[in-house]
Amino acid sequence: MESWINSTNKDKGIVLSSRIRLARNISKTPFPDKLSDEQGKKITGSVSSKFLSDESIKGKFKCIYLWENDKNSNIEYLEKHLISKKLIENKNKSAFIINNNETISIMLNEEDHIRLQGISAGFDLIDAYKELNKIDDILEEKIDYAFDEKLGYLTACPTNLGTGMRASVMVHLPALSMNNEMTRILNALTQIGITIRGMFGEGSRALGDLYQISNQITLGISETDIISNLNAVVNQILNQEKLSREQIMKKYKYELEDKIYRSLGILENAVILDKDECLKLISSVRMGIEMDIIKDIDIRKLDSLLIDSQSASLKKICNKNLSGREEDIIRADYVKNNLR
Amino acid sequence: MESWINSTNKDKGIVLSSRIRLARNISKTPFPDKLSDEQGKKITGSVSSKFLSDESIKGKFKCIYLWENDKNSNIEYLEKHLISKKLIENKNKSAFIINNNETISIMLNEEDHIRLQGISAGFDLIDAYKELNKIDDILEEKIDYAFDEKLGYLTACPTNLGTGMRASVMVHLPALSMNNEMTRILNALTQIGITIRGMFGEGSRALGDLYQISNQITLGISETDIISNLNAVVNQILNQEKLSREQIMKKYKYELEDKIYRSLGILENAVILDKDECLKLISSVRMGIEMDIIKDIDIRKLDSLLIDSQSASLKKICNKNLSGREEDIIRADYVKNNLR
Repeated sequence: MESWINSTNKDKGIVLSSRIRLARNISKTPFPDKLSDEQGKKITGSVSSKFLSDESIKGKFKCIYLWENDKNSNIEYLEKHLISKKLIENKNKSAFIINNNETISIMLNEEDHIRLQGISAGFDLIDAYKELNKIDDILEEKIDYAFDEKLGYLTACPTNLGTGMRASVMVHLPALSMNNEMTRILNALTQIGITIRGMFGEGSRALGDLYQISNQITLGISETDIISNLNAVVNQILNQEKLSREQIMKKYKYELEDKIYRSLGILENAVILDKDECLKLISSVRMGIEMDIIKDIDIRKLDSLLIDSQSASLKKICNKNLSGREEDIIRADYVKNNLR
Repeated sequence: MESWINSTNKDKGIVLSSRIRLARNISKTPFPDKLSDEQGKKITGSVSSKFLSDESIKGKFKCIYLWENDKNSNIEYLEKHLISKKLIENKNKSAFIINNNETISIMLNEEDHIRLQGISAGFDLIDAYKELNKIDDILEEKIDYAFDEKLGYLTACPTNLGTGMRASVMVHLPALSMNNEMTRILNALTQIGITIRGMFGEGSRALGDLYQISNQITLGISETDIISNLNAVVNQILNQEKLSREQIMKKYKYELEDKIYRSLGILENAVILDKDECLKLISSVRMGIEMDIIKDIDIRKLDSLLIDSQSASLKKICNKNLSGREEDIIRADYVKNNLR
């Protein structure tokens, strides 16, 4: 699998990344929320030592214990979507195992004992699933999973019962957002058991027009059916996005180009740049690249900026704590230097 | 005198140009508003032929008759501040004489029969007056001016009686504008017979933070006193502007630089740019150059853009009539190409 942030796949366009998550639990053991810190730590140690001792993956993975790691570094992994907020909340008993190019992470003591996650660049759920399945097989050999013949994998939350699988795709939908189509799409998808959520920001605000589309149903359906259903839905949304772009281009060519180039001009020149504005501007410029309006900027640069311009990542890059205003000044400087 | 638009005076900074205007009338002749088109045309012909025949200025001036000139070309001269709206209103009987580098214009049949105007780059009213005085002497030799021993030069409007002189200075006051000081200054100046007006836009809206400061009193005071009074007032305002800039720089360094560089980024990248926004952005960038924040842009380029980005000038440059939207697209393109 290719890391989506550094992908060399130039053609990935509207789909930034594909993600598979599998929820697993250890049989006859209370779910993480019922574990004391001591019990939790013990489980993370046991799972990681069993997994890391496997010959086939030796030297390719490492385990990070959250209680040993500094706070900013944890948030940085969160901003990269490699771990979750919930894992950080459980930081006195949680850990995660990660491979060298950061395409696979295994969260320990999140909501479930084990949550495997594989992220692949572009639109390729099957590839992400295949890779993750290998890791799941290694774990299943060494760990007695909580599994019921009738229900499938048992999980802390009933919404994950069955396959324990969540497949999701990160898509960039600026044209549908401009046309105020997102609420309509959201409502339609809910009907067929698919969720769409903004990647950045709380609630329905989708900063940067980046959305995550994922399956809601995990029970009574096979893994491959979940993936092929989601693939079909995403393809339909991609077509709608492309259609919207063509319409906008036909009706408002200059207005669209104006928005895109002004965004680039501001990203290249601003001296103070807050996180939200930065995401919005990157979204416009990314749309310009996807639509071949801007030709001399590598889309990978922008995708790196999506992550690197987040607070914790910036802190790591400049190696110090930042106040809000300081952060906005350093962000502007960082973005400018990376774009020019 | 140097043309302010193409001045090589790098140090002109806050003062863009200095202007002297002299109002003169021909004795025993009705003022222009009382003249028929035929009578008016006759006067323009007579004045211009007398003036242009003078040996000392031969080949350096030409006369343009407004009724012969096309409309856009007239508006272009208006945008360059070489002629007035009133002259265009009188276009069936008005004309103007202009020198080759466009520093001196003599309007014929504006409100008065003869209005001489000299514009000099930077802050140099005395230079502008000296040059214009020579032209006035040439005219006075050949034309019987309406002059009263007690009142001085007689003019159509009593506010110009006496010297018939209006001295004015075009200044760039972005810091005082930001600090909302302009109303206070305006009120103070009115008390001492000085007017301050926005250069672009109607009423009190001063687009581009460009103001024209001029004397209101022409009677009972000598030409040199008018100039030295105005010089003193302008110097005081310049000091206030510089002080405001220092204060802003001290308190809001990053915010100011952000505003300046974003303006530059938009000017260099926009695809649609309307006249008003263009003036505002140019003003910010000009402030950046004046304050040595932006170092690699020639201030003359910006001053040319102040004029060239106006509607009629743009029309001339691209040699066709433009709709509003078309004009905004061509303006963006023109500005971008000239700045990069």
